[in-house]
Amino acid sequence: MAFIERTLLGPGPSNPYPEATAGLAAPLLGHLDPEFIGILERTCERLRSLWGTANPLTLPLSGTGSIGMEAAFANTVRPGDVVVVAVNGLFGVRMCDVAARYGAEVVRVDHEWGRPVDVERVLAAHPSPAIVAAVHAETSTGVRSDIGALGAAVRARSDRTLLLADCVTSLGGMVMDADSWGVDIAYSGTQKCLGVAPGLAPFTFSERAWERRVAAPPVWYLDLDLLGAYVRGGAGGRAYHHTAPVALIASLDAALGRICDEGIDAVAERHRAAGARLQEGVQELGLELFAAEGHRLPQLTSVRVPDDVDSAKVREQLLSDYGIEIGAGAGAYAASVWRIGLMGANARLDRAELLLAALGRILGRSRV
Amino acid sequence: MAFIERTLLGPGPSNPYPEATAGLAAPLLGHLDPEFIGILERTCERLRSLWGTANPLTLPLSGTGSIGMEAAFANTVRPGDVVVVAVNGLFGVRMCDVAARYGAEVVRVDHEWGRPVDVERVLAAHPSPAIVAAVHAETSTGVRSDIGALGAAVRARSDRTLLLADCVTSLGGMVMDADSWGVDIAYSGTQKCLGVAPGLAPFTFSERAWERRVAAPPVWYLDLDLLGAYVRGGAGGRAYHHTAPVALIASLDAALGRICDEGIDAVAERHRAAGARLQEGVQELGLELFAAEGHRLPQLTSVRVPDDVDSAKVREQLLSDYGIEIGAGAGAYAASVWRIGLMGANARLDRAELLLAALGRILGRSRV
Repeated sequence: MAFIERTLLGPGPSNPYPEATAGLAAPLLGHLDPEFIGILERTCERLRSLWGTANPLTLPLSGTGSIGMEAAFANTVRPGDVVVVAVNGLFGVRMCDVAARYGAEVVRVDHEWGRPVDVERVLAAHPSPAIVAAVHAETSTGVRSDIGALGAAVRARSDRTLLLADCVTSLGGMVMDADSWGVDIAYSGTQKCLGVAPGLAPFTFSERAWERRVAAPPVWYLDLDLLGAYVRGGAGGRAYHHTAPVALIASLDAALGRICDEGIDAVAERHRAAGARLQEGVQELGLELFAAEGHRLPQLTSVRVPDDVDSAKVREQLLSDYGIEIGAGAGAYAASVWRIGLMGANARLDRAELLLAALGRILGRSRV
Repeated sequence: MAFIERTLLGPGPSNPYPEATAGLAAPLLGHLDPEFIGILERTCERLRSLWGTANPLTLPLSGTGSIGMEAAFANTVRPGDVVVVAVNGLFGVRMCDVAARYGAEVVRVDHEWGRPVDVERVLAAHPSPAIVAAVHAETSTGVRSDIGALGAAVRARSDRTLLLADCVTSLGGMVMDADSWGVDIAYSGTQKCLGVAPGLAPFTFSERAWERRVAAPPVWYLDLDLLGAYVRGGAGGRAYHHTAPVALIASLDAALGRICDEGIDAVAERHRAAGARLQEGVQELGLELFAAEGHRLPQLTSVRVPDDVDSAKVREQLLSDYGIEIGAGAGAYAASVWRIGLMGANARLDRAELLLAALGRILGRSRV
């Protein structure tokens, strides 16, 4: 079997940490093996640490990042519940779709794509929603929103509203403090800043959310009562729910070990420095950044494609000539934006310089 | 990192094929990379071949085996639909739970655990159900049911009823002919006879089922319209739905390549021979088999625990002294049955002899 090597600088997956690959290929353990249960418990504890939460119900769900969004709404929305969704990109749009499937009365607060969430507008959208939902790091635009400010505003008004945050592209790449931000429900994906192959959705659920959860939600696979009985155990021990994806969890555990050893502050600084250099270099090439200044994610840079350039052709040439993958834009920006990720193991200056050099060659532009 | 090696002879996961492990650790590709799309298409084609189906909608779902069951009901059940479920073990019970969450009027046909599904009783349960569901290989008891006979009977009566078959523990270990059996919807898991780590649910859906699918089902993640747009593509190319678990799919592809090279007839014969030897040897040790004679799965052997033996203690000793995992019984049989799997890469005579030797030593029984 001939392997093909890629440098994955799109919006995810990114190249895994070497520790994650070693964990993935390690001898397989059974999902009820005491050794595996130890790995699972450590994984949950490390996820709590990265998120800055004490939530007992913090675990990797058995699906890709999107299943985290599904689990969030499936376990909290009752038909007729008002859910305010801050939409400033594709994943906000998706939240509206998912929440509506569970019967939510969705109040959608649209923002211009590329701009962060406006806390005042979100708050003004409805006086007493059951849930306020927003995306921390919009993978579709490269924009960071201030979840702490949103949480403080929501909490100041009422204790009845749950705050839901999409952290797919932030967890493992930024310092987070979910509990003091007032986040009740959050999820992520392994294939972005966590530096693991796709297939798991880290998930956390506060005690406040637990008290108001939906009993026997429509989706058996994501029923938190049943999942909790396996992950947390109980008086009668751990109850089998479904076979956990043991290899992916061992891989996530290994990557989290690497991140914790390096220290989340150092990892975040590594993401910041690599992203800053990339964004500087992109502008040196005479290209324009898409996301609003002051709200740009270092781990995901969105670039406006010049009018005279064929967006897809450049991506194809990066892939064929240099083995580098970058992403198209999302939605209406498919042909007019590129998305470049420097996430997890790829949050490095050499990756930034490599991409700038290859892109400069293809565009026939030198840095000014 | 010190690795722990286990011989996984429980009801799954089993030790992966070496080809599957190599595929899992291969350099990661993006989910939209043309090279990966080639791997995905080949995987779907090989799944069709193993299942004996021409269904265009045949794909690995992004979750463990149970998500296949969820997708099956989520995309076919409308509130009030009559679903007849043949229950002869834990997974039949689970089908009733899952179908009911989507609003099905469940007609449950209970069988004694350890016995195969009785086609006449299932047929007599309701004159015109929307769906008849049964488990091909009951992982909880080690029993095979005749899905071909059930399909013929269902089809002979009406063209309006869909046949749903749980193939979690059969696909990759037995010769199957889903299309001529009349199966409309089937799912499996990768961690049993397919010899891959857990995390994917192979799934197939007939054109007849497609015509009667639920539009915009409650579960966004499992919406076959959206999944199909990525897996099958369309006039506008492939639409992104969620990030496919690329490493697991590459691993499944490698295992399927191995199975197809060996030939499914030869693979099935390997399972048959290993299971036959194990079941013979277990009886030589003076132990009794649980599943009804003539309906025993070779890949999963259920054994009655002798009255004077502590079931859990024996399993613990197998694990600690020999690194061998076997399973407890399911449900009410937790303490009175052992489940021993010889699946996928473990469907070998040496594994059967190893288990018999270790079990004989622990029980202090020699073969007679």
